[in-house]
Amino acid sequence: MTDFPPPPILAPEDHWALLSDDAPYGDLTTESLGIGGGNGSIRFAARQAMTVAGLEDAAALLSLAGVSVTTHARSGDRLASGATLLEGEGPASALHRGWKVSQTFLEIWSGVATAARALTDAAQAVRADAVVACTRKNVPGTKAMAAAAVRAGGAVMHRLGLSETLLVFPEHRAFLPNSDLASLAQRLKSVAPEKKCIIEVLSVAEGIDAAKAGFDVIQTEKFSPQEVAELAQAISSITPKPVLAAAGGITPENAGNYVQSGADVLVSSWPYTARPADIAVSLGPPPHE
Amino acid sequence: MTDFPPPPILAPEDHWALLSDDAPYGDLTTESLGIGGGNGSIRFAARQAMTVAGLEDAAALLSLAGVSVTTHARSGDRLASGATLLEGEGPASALHRGWKVSQTFLEIWSGVATAARALTDAAQAVRADAVVACTRKNVPGTKAMAAAAVRAGGAVMHRLGLSETLLVFPEHRAFLPNSDLASLAQRLKSVAPEKKCIIEVLSVAEGIDAAKAGFDVIQTEKFSPQEVAELAQAISSITPKPVLAAAGGITPENAGNYVQSGADVLVSSWPYTARPADIAVSLGPPPHE
Amino acid sequence: MTDFPPPPILAPEDHWALLSDDAPYGDLTTESLGIGGGNGSIRFAARQAMTVAGLEDAAALLSLAGVSVTTHARSGDRLASGATLLEGEGPASALHRGWKVSQTFLEIWSGVATAARALTDAAQAVRADAVVACTRKNVPGTKAMAAAAVRAGGAVMHRLGLSETLLVFPEHRAFLPNSDLASLAQRLKSVAPEKKCIIEVLSVAEGIDAAKAGFDVIQTEKFSPQEVAELAQAISSITPKPVLAAAGGITPENAGNYVQSGADVLVSSWPYTARPADIAVSLGPPPHE
Amino acid sequence: MTDFPPPPILAPEDHWALLSDDAPYGDLTTESLGIGGGNGSIRFAARQAMTVAGLEDAAALLSLAGVSVTTHARSGDRLASGATLLEGEGPASALHRGWKVSQTFLEIWSGVATAARALTDAAQAVRADAVVACTRKNVPGTKAMAAAAVRAGGAVMHRLGLSETLLVFPEHRAFLPNSDLASLAQRLKSVAPEKKCIIEVLSVAEGIDAAKAGFDVIQTEKFSPQEVAELAQAISSITPKPVLAAAGGITPENAGNYVQSGADVLVSSWPYTARPADIAVSLGPPPHE
Amino acid sequence: MTDFPPPPILAPEDHWALLSDDAPYGDLTTESLGIGGGNGSIRFAARQAMTVAGLEDAAALLSLAGVSVTTHARSGDRLASGATLLEGEGPASALHRGWKVSQTFLEIWSGVATAARALTDAAQAVRADAVVACTRKNVPGTKAMAAAAVRAGGAVMHRLGLSETLLVFPEHRAFLPNSDLASLAQRLKSVAPEKKCIIEVLSVAEGIDAAKAGFDVIQTEKFSPQEVAELAQAISSITPKPVLAAAGGITPENAGNYVQSGADVLVSSWPYTARPADIAVSLGPPPHE
Amino acid sequence: MTDFPPPPILAPEDHWALLSDDAPYGDLTTESLGIGGGNGSIRFAARQAMTVAGLEDAAALLSLAGVSVTTHARSGDRLASGATLLEGEGPASALHRGWKVSQTFLEIWSGVATAARALTDAAQAVRADAVVACTRKNVPGTKAMAAAAVRAGGAVMHRLGLSETLLVFPEHRAFLPNSDLASLAQRLKSVAPEKKCIIEVLSVAEGIDAAKAGFDVIQTEKFSPQEVAELAQAISSITPKPVLAAAGGITPENAGNYVQSGADVLVSSWPYTARPADIAVSLGPPPHE
Repeated sequence: MTDFPPPPILAPEDHWALLSDDAPYGDLTTESLGIGGGNGSIRFAARQAMTVAGLEDAAALLSLAGVSVTTHARSGDRLASGATLLEGEGPASALHRGWKVSQTFLEIWSGVATAARALTDAAQAVRADAVVACTRKNVPGTKAMAAAAVRAGGAVMHRLGLSETLLVFPEHRAFLPNSDLASLAQRLKSVAPEKKCIIEVLSVAEGIDAAKAGFDVIQTEKFSPQEVAELAQAISSITPKPVLAAAGGITPENAGNYVQSGADVLVSSWPYTARPADIAVSLGPPPHE
Repeated sequence: MTDFPPPPILAPEDHWALLSDDAPYGDLTTESLGIGGGNGSIRFAARQAMTVAGLEDAAALLSLAGVSVTTHARSGDRLASGATLLEGEGPASALHRGWKVSQTFLEIWSGVATAARALTDAAQAVRADAVVACTRKNVPGTKAMAAAAVRAGGAVMHRLGLSETLLVFPEHRAFLPNSDLASLAQRLKSVAPEKKCIIEVLSVAEGIDAAKAGFDVIQTEKFSPQEVAELAQAISSITPKPVLAAAGGITPENAGNYVQSGADVLVSSWPYTARPADIAVSLGPPPHE
Repeated sequence: MTDFPPPPILAPEDHWALLSDDAPYGDLTTESLGIGGGNGSIRFAARQAMTVAGLEDAAALLSLAGVSVTTHARSGDRLASGATLLEGEGPASALHRGWKVSQTFLEIWSGVATAARALTDAAQAVRADAVVACTRKNVPGTKAMAAAAVRAGGAVMHRLGLSETLLVFPEHRAFLPNSDLASLAQRLKSVAPEKKCIIEVLSVAEGIDAAKAGFDVIQTEKFSPQEVAELAQAISSITPKPVLAAAGGITPENAGNYVQSGADVLVSSWPYTARPADIAVSLGPPPHE
Repeated sequence: MTDFPPPPILAPEDHWALLSDDAPYGDLTTESLGIGGGNGSIRFAARQAMTVAGLEDAAALLSLAGVSVTTHARSGDRLASGATLLEGEGPASALHRGWKVSQTFLEIWSGVATAARALTDAAQAVRADAVVACTRKNVPGTKAMAAAAVRAGGAVMHRLGLSETLLVFPEHRAFLPNSDLASLAQRLKSVAPEKKCIIEVLSVAEGIDAAKAGFDVIQTEKFSPQEVAELAQAISSITPKPVLAAAGGITPENAGNYVQSGADVLVSSWPYTARPADIAVSLGPPPHE
Repeated sequence: MTDFPPPPILAPEDHWALLSDDAPYGDLTTESLGIGGGNGSIRFAARQAMTVAGLEDAAALLSLAGVSVTTHARSGDRLASGATLLEGEGPASALHRGWKVSQTFLEIWSGVATAARALTDAAQAVRADAVVACTRKNVPGTKAMAAAAVRAGGAVMHRLGLSETLLVFPEHRAFLPNSDLASLAQRLKSVAPEKKCIIEVLSVAEGIDAAKAGFDVIQTEKFSPQEVAELAQAISSITPKPVLAAAGGITPENAGNYVQSGADVLVSSWPYTARPADIAVSLGPPPHE
Repeated sequence: MTDFPPPPILAPEDHWALLSDDAPYGDLTTESLGIGGGNGSIRFAARQAMTVAGLEDAAALLSLAGVSVTTHARSGDRLASGATLLEGEGPASALHRGWKVSQTFLEIWSGVATAARALTDAAQAVRADAVVACTRKNVPGTKAMAAAAVRAGGAVMHRLGLSETLLVFPEHRAFLPNSDLASLAQRLKSVAPEKKCIIEVLSVAEGIDAAKAGFDVIQTEKFSPQEVAELAQAISSITPKPVLAAAGGITPENAGNYVQSGADVLVSSWPYTARPADIAVSLGPPPHE
């Protein structure tokens, strides 16, 4: 079976916008030096072990700038330090126009993917089907790439926003002071029978109540692994067993503990501000080794 | 003299896009619970000491969602833990629609500002007019807010992109193998007499050559503080004295050392992936204390 | 408790785009007649019983055109023939600029809401918590308003698109010729534990298999009510009981039959091309009765 | 003479927007099943006789999704039931991403074209040069495709909006209570000599007056065919003979009667909410018949 | 009768785009000087006699920048040198942000309006109902403002583009080598009975033929006034008399001659590159006389 | 060394927008005549000596319309009258759709480039390294093409806007009534050490003061050449010598005088409203000579 590579995530006009953001009115240095028409090449290589994200988009950015690109990896790949990510050829003006934009793009999103991968690896080392679900607290305005990087790192999106999930916060319940959890769950299941009903709980007792009330997913907020274990134990006999999702302060260091404690899903925003993955770029006239 | 507050950074359509990104087709939970028409209030407070950025935009986001907002601080302010940032009132549907979007916005950009402030404080503790200049390696697609957060933290933008600065990299010079530095500097000054000529150098010797060749700003790439000091000493008698800019690996821990060594400007991308500033939000029907 | 009205669905720039679409370079007739500066008023009234959608957006459109608007209903309201929807005052140029755009907007989306309401009423006449879920087969490019009109008519969105639901079509299974339904369900539940797993089935036998395999929602494609009843009967003892969703050819005429047969959810695209609701507009100088 | 096919109507960014609207953050089902990289094919065929519209755009949508497309018809073609519209090959991820978006697109716009064709056929069966002109009351935000579908169905656009036609409604005349029709016509001809002057009339008497006053096109609003015939007869001796346009309630059933009565142009919004044309899609791994 | 002022031409997001175009990342000078929070005022005054265009948009631009604006004129007004156009107050940051953008806007478009006014005055000095019609050869990307400025100067738009007018060029006829003018006119009238048929002719003889063939408007391309007169004379007995439109090289100097020769319409692109109208701006702290 | 041609300046979506601006709903004339499917060719040739700008974008526009294009020149080239700019082939519908849009584009921007070239030639005839710097007073909304045309004419951009240059106007100083020039210069150099400090002066005396105060660039506003010479003489002994930039009323006629007087840079807005360069287009079926 053919194994097609993934397409870029962003629209062509988004790629253009990034190039234009960086060089809205030409490249003053390259033009002033008069070197733009010469031929050259560019190579991106990993300076650290990393999980790649954004590679197809970085390639598309460079192509749009006028570079002929060959990719040597795919988003989602785990690369060793030193591995080549992509190579390109073209006019010096195109190489300089696309260089930093594509490098920063690749470094930032591979940083996020590498962090998501670290969380997922830590969780799945304990239980192979543990799931890391990343929140919608990505850097504002970058949701498409953030979601792609999260998936490249083996995680899933917890919720894409307010329109497609039922997640009851205490801040919702504050407006329904006279409703018990069972009637809430009943109402939601009746109105939206194709969705799971998720609820955020702030204590073990509340988690137990929510599970008994019929919520499909119990999401703990800033529980310790011990509290998660206590809740998991308490609801273990409820049928069907609710999914247990632990949120708040999850890191690669404690992810395994939470899974060990019984969490099915780890909910995290941690990867979104990961440090960029370090990528070396060489650029010059051929040969430029 | 009246002291007007700063305006939001982003366009109204950008604020709408962020709201719409999160709730493109309504708020399923709030609507399913039938609580949207009730009255409520919201309050944002600092959970840590922080330098604020994005406050006017967060307020605009909430307003656009239908919340009546009062701000209690300004972007650029240094706040103590516990300080109130803003308060708002309005329908529960508006509060829930704007809540996480504005919170994430404020946390992310205040995180960047707080990091820029830390760098600037560290540098200016050694020399009051030391300057921190942040690069264009911001999270792709967020330049306007990144630049605003950097300025809120007391730093400046190193360059906005390729169109408005002359910055010669070794990757430019590779295309001019037969040109010496003096002829490069001469050419640039002749073509763009209203700009300073900046050059990135990879060694002390190259820095000395560049200074002698007449470049206005010598930007060192990944020099140690000792190397910076060596270069500063070597070029101290050149008139007019070039500006010395140190780039690569600058953190609050070493920023003072670089300034001590003679760097006039510290060039950094470090703040762009700072951890979010922690902001507490309370939301509920009045009174919701 | 205050009962706030809902906000408009579309962005201000979308409202502008609609006005500009109709009058990109001015209103030739009104300007040629020289009547634009005079004062006038406008009134919209229902010419038939209808469920309203888009009223807040129609009001925003007229406001943006320069009309002072008062609304007399809300999206979601059921109106009798003759009821006033909104009234406005302003310059004749503004009234003529906004008239047909806002009228067409209100007629088209109220037509969709009225159709969704008819489906929902027919279903809920049989069982009060039956749900009508509208598909993503709306007129291309109009999803936000289509979804809003559907909700105004008492229905919900079946799925917003490909990113937020698990819905297995036979066209997916064709790529997995060696997988049985149980392993598919298992895989999906493991990967996306916060989602319900939905499957489209083409026969009663297949529906029974899917229910036994553990799918959460069984969606029948073009079943007769009798086939739905047969399936409902066959899976009635499975715990937890899967949700039964009937899709294909649902109309107000047969909706009750499907619910009677045991369908929990009726999946329909029928409302999206409903005939416009008929709205009378009177426009002229005051008084214009 | 070469006979080139027509180009797509929408911009590439509009095609992207439609794809992104449906799958803003990936295709959860296809990705969760892990089938995206496999090879497959897709085929669209007419399930009913239809006039096609939007075929070039549907092909462009699929191409943008990553499918290699061959079209077997052109927008404007009349197809028999069973005819193939297009075929494509590519990765399963691309096929699933583009499937429903392109199918819905083609069904909706071919529905409009088929309806416009029905009106035009009915009119031209009586007089070969009768013209059907569709109004600007299309589904808001879809004017470019609506106009293209109308033209594909053999009709023309009555007016594109307010900027390019002179069409006097009673609602204009209400602001000019002291002007007679002759002075209105005179004014408009003087101001805009390159345009025809059109007027909407509400009675036969008014139509006669308008024709005598020199209007180029007399547009009747909700006249019966008998009233149209009466007006046609009354103005038959005026030179140059005004164009007679009948608007309001035109359907394929009565279109011929209106033409028979003397209408030169039938003005209609009827096609815009036509039911979708039914198109069968087969999608699977090769061969998938 | 109330006499309402006209609204701005451009969308709010267009105003924002112009501000952002000029200050995408803040105002470096004003911020570096630390003067932005102070109060100040601004005044725009005509430095020459001019016809104003764009005033409402310039006011909207300044408002969006944070200035409280009062206008003292309207687009379309003829102002004497020295007249005040608008005044504003607000923070120095807002005044500096909006100053040059709004000044340039007003100068450029008032320059176009003043030029259109000069053409129109010259033409109407000879015949009061002569019409100046400006082409679609405006500066690319500025059609909305160009059309508004043209109208502010008393002219009309010749055609908005290709979608709404029938204008046969020789370059069309080259593809129909075997069709005579009468059959062309017949075809167009049949297909588009609500439009006038316009034809560009390159000689007097061709103009006569076109008039006899039944074209509604004969547009001469680069005729001398004498040639126009010859054509006007030759077609004077045709009924209904075609409109005679003279295009090519029209200026205020020769406009009267063309009208004298019998041209009903003067078609011109001349105003679009008119020199900016000169507007004086005073800006400073109050009082700033 | 390969000598690559420059890429287009505008984004593909901008090219589409220009085409769509002109033909939003098809080409009524070409479609009504039924000639769109035939094959044809187009040729653009200079009707006057000119410096070309926008050629790559005009080619991209035509390509997007469906024309196969070959360019025979590059933006920045000086062409003699009669020279061919580009040739294309394709369907008549594509040729007619792209014709006027691309012609106007090329004429307008080549007009600007030709004017910038005239200024630059006049200045450099006196001193080979004199620089013409064009202001930001371009036609609003056209900055990218305006800047490109200016560069094509051998000039540079004076400033791109407010975010990237330090330019002190008297209108800034009015808010700092107690600050002398030396402290202003000191402040700016301290805050933004990577930028040159520019100041606009209104008299020779002020220019001398500013130079002594340490400003890097002294920009004279509406000085006569004699005043420039006086200032140049007075500051000739200051080290480092400030750059002298003359602004206000610069034309090709006086540009040489200003350079002769000692201006290093001539600041001008004059090219932006230059008359279009005259370009002949031939279009027809092959051969169409």
